[in-house]
Amino acid sequence: MQTAGFQFELLHVDRNSGARLARLTTPRGVIDLPTFMPVGTCGTVKGLTYDQVEKIGAQITLGNTYHLALRPGADVVEAMGGLHKFIGWSKPILTDSGGFQLFSLAKISKIRESGATFQSHIDGRKLELTPEKSVEIQEQLGSDIAMVLDHVIGLPADRNAILDACERSIRWAGRCQNAHRRSDQIQFAIVQGGLDADLRKWCAGELTAMEFPGYAIGGLSVGEEPAEMYRIISATTPCLPVDKPRYLMGVGRPQDLLEGIARGIDMFDCVMPTRNGRNASAFTDQGELNLRNKCHQLDPQPVQADVLTDWSHLSRAYLRHLFKAGEMLGPILLSLHNLAYYMGLMRQAREAIAHDSFLEFYQERMAGWGEPAPFNRPC
Amino acid sequence: MQTAGFQFELLHVDRNSGARLARLTTPRGVIDLPTFMPVGTCGTVKGLTYDQVEKIGAQITLGNTYHLALRPGADVVEAMGGLHKFIGWSKPILTDSGGFQLFSLAKISKIRESGATFQSHIDGRKLELTPEKSVEIQEQLGSDIAMVLDHVIGLPADRNAILDACERSIRWAGRCQNAHRRSDQIQFAIVQGGLDADLRKWCAGELTAMEFPGYAIGGLSVGEEPAEMYRIISATTPCLPVDKPRYLMGVGRPQDLLEGIARGIDMFDCVMPTRNGRNASAFTDQGELNLRNKCHQLDPQPVQADVLTDWSHLSRAYLRHLFKAGEMLGPILLSLHNLAYYMGLMRQAREAIAHDSFLEFYQERMAGWGEPAPFNRPC
Repeated sequence: MQTAGFQFELLHVDRNSGARLARLTTPRGVIDLPTFMPVGTCGTVKGLTYDQVEKIGAQITLGNTYHLALRPGADVVEAMGGLHKFIGWSKPILTDSGGFQLFSLAKISKIRESGATFQSHIDGRKLELTPEKSVEIQEQLGSDIAMVLDHVIGLPADRNAILDACERSIRWAGRCQNAHRRSDQIQFAIVQGGLDADLRKWCAGELTAMEFPGYAIGGLSVGEEPAEMYRIISATTPCLPVDKPRYLMGVGRPQDLLEGIARGIDMFDCVMPTRNGRNASAFTDQGELNLRNKCHQLDPQPVQADVLTDWSHLSRAYLRHLFKAGEMLGPILLSLHNLAYYMGLMRQAREAIAHDSFLEFYQERMAGWGEPAPFNRPC
Repeated sequence: MQTAGFQFELLHVDRNSGARLARLTTPRGVIDLPTFMPVGTCGTVKGLTYDQVEKIGAQITLGNTYHLALRPGADVVEAMGGLHKFIGWSKPILTDSGGFQLFSLAKISKIRESGATFQSHIDGRKLELTPEKSVEIQEQLGSDIAMVLDHVIGLPADRNAILDACERSIRWAGRCQNAHRRSDQIQFAIVQGGLDADLRKWCAGELTAMEFPGYAIGGLSVGEEPAEMYRIISATTPCLPVDKPRYLMGVGRPQDLLEGIARGIDMFDCVMPTRNGRNASAFTDQGELNLRNKCHQLDPQPVQADVLTDWSHLSRAYLRHLFKAGEMLGPILLSLHNLAYYMGLMRQAREAIAHDSFLEFYQERMAGWGEPAPFNRPC
């Protein structure tokens, strides 16, 4: 499929790590990499307006094929002019393929070579998702970056099951590539292979040969130890083309993002900033704060002074009050803070890479978070 | 009590009704009258940031003494620099006195001449609220306009009970006046008297003689027929001084606002815009829309094209999707729309009064809402 208006530029690789400064140009705007993509599962970044999301610096957001296909339906979104117009976000959108939700959400999901049959988690309707159907839905949604349908399995699993799912994911990637029609959308392939480094490398090689415009690492952050995830990232990124963007799906905590960047990852997404924000947990350079705690009752400090949002002059005492009173504004303000924190972290990471000081930045943040720093010189 | 920096100016009275164009200047800003005051019960206009509330044109918001005194506590708010700083709203704030909540919310409220004892609706703590305590709390909160503590009773009630509560409200108003200390805060008295026009007139006369800087009509919108409420407003406003602001407490629907304005009311507050917004009900010039309805599934129209918010380009179809999916953004967007609708209605009313065309404006809106128009020439 010929596509137009997309360009990936690798601007600089950090002298002391695998961290990459890059730029992905799309018809709907430029994305400075590394980037974090706020998750708009059902066509909304939970609790926020898209102009708030834009104002804190997001250059791309996510939409979920599985959720949007079930409700309101891809036909509805298409009839309303596509996902961008429907939700009021004019910058790039990445849609996942539904593969992860088949694994995590759908009731009685059954995978065959043709595709997956499953029951909707909303109303129990029986539905089918094939690679071709996933492509079709994502083209109806009109996202800028579409993901291939992959076969995600739970970990731990035995090698044969992982191999089987991995091989199927490769075959399905090919079917997605063949089904692709929109010239204003690019497809990313997804590397699977569980926690088996050799399988990951093989899978990455197979998919690289198919020449996708971008590559994702999927099937991680499903319960394994962080160190295991980092090991797999370290094994995989060297097997991916240097001149294509790399996306680590569904990850993660701030420390996971820096570990990923150090290993050459360019793109991340995770519900954690908004989910934790709804639960009164604030990300800061000194680690997470629980704003329900009594110690914040008379605390005049902002959550973190240099994380700027329209409300960053407000105190932890006010935030605590909102959460204790069960007011919607608590989750709203803290979701926005946490996303702004993530966007700021990515901006700082890009600056550090440009100055070959990513390792110093990494060490400073990890120390602030009270994290042991397992990373020295990956890959 | 000498106060400084407050001024009420009556700019124009509509030729064909009692509608008044006026201006209330306070140390924290000018309020163009008639005005609607968004309600921030617990120090937040539910679901919205205060910068959103300001952006749609609000010039004053409300805070609730009863709620804030229970949680987070007036001491906490005072220690954090007062309510304005605590919530991040620099324009004027009006605080009610707690009288209405003693009637509507508190468990086992017992009124004596000294004050009210009641149990907190939050944790069952036994507390006392006297006129002096209400003044003290409102001075701790640091509102610009404070309300006197009044004795609100349910309707219907017999004349003796209404008279008793009315007389007590007058005595309590005097005690509030005596207890008042802050020169940067003015107090409004509250006219009570149930649905008895003579009692209302008498109460208004007694309070007028006490020379408060502003007057409210309380104890309405508690279940009586709208026509009864309008009758009492018509009986009361002529007995209030023309050179002081008049505030109809807790009212109401858009039609109630226009009926109130026609009878010389300057200020309103009500939770309806945000409460209805949270329940998918949108105010428009054609009446209320329920955005959960199937008819909006593919409706590309905005809720109302000329009610401008940061998201007013979004479709009814998207709003419906958000409500069907149980997403926070539905209540957020519709609360903002409804408040913007109310603010726009007040702006249009002011323009109409300035041009002596309030009656035409009133008739046009009432026709749009499908309301019979009981008002001809009030007072």
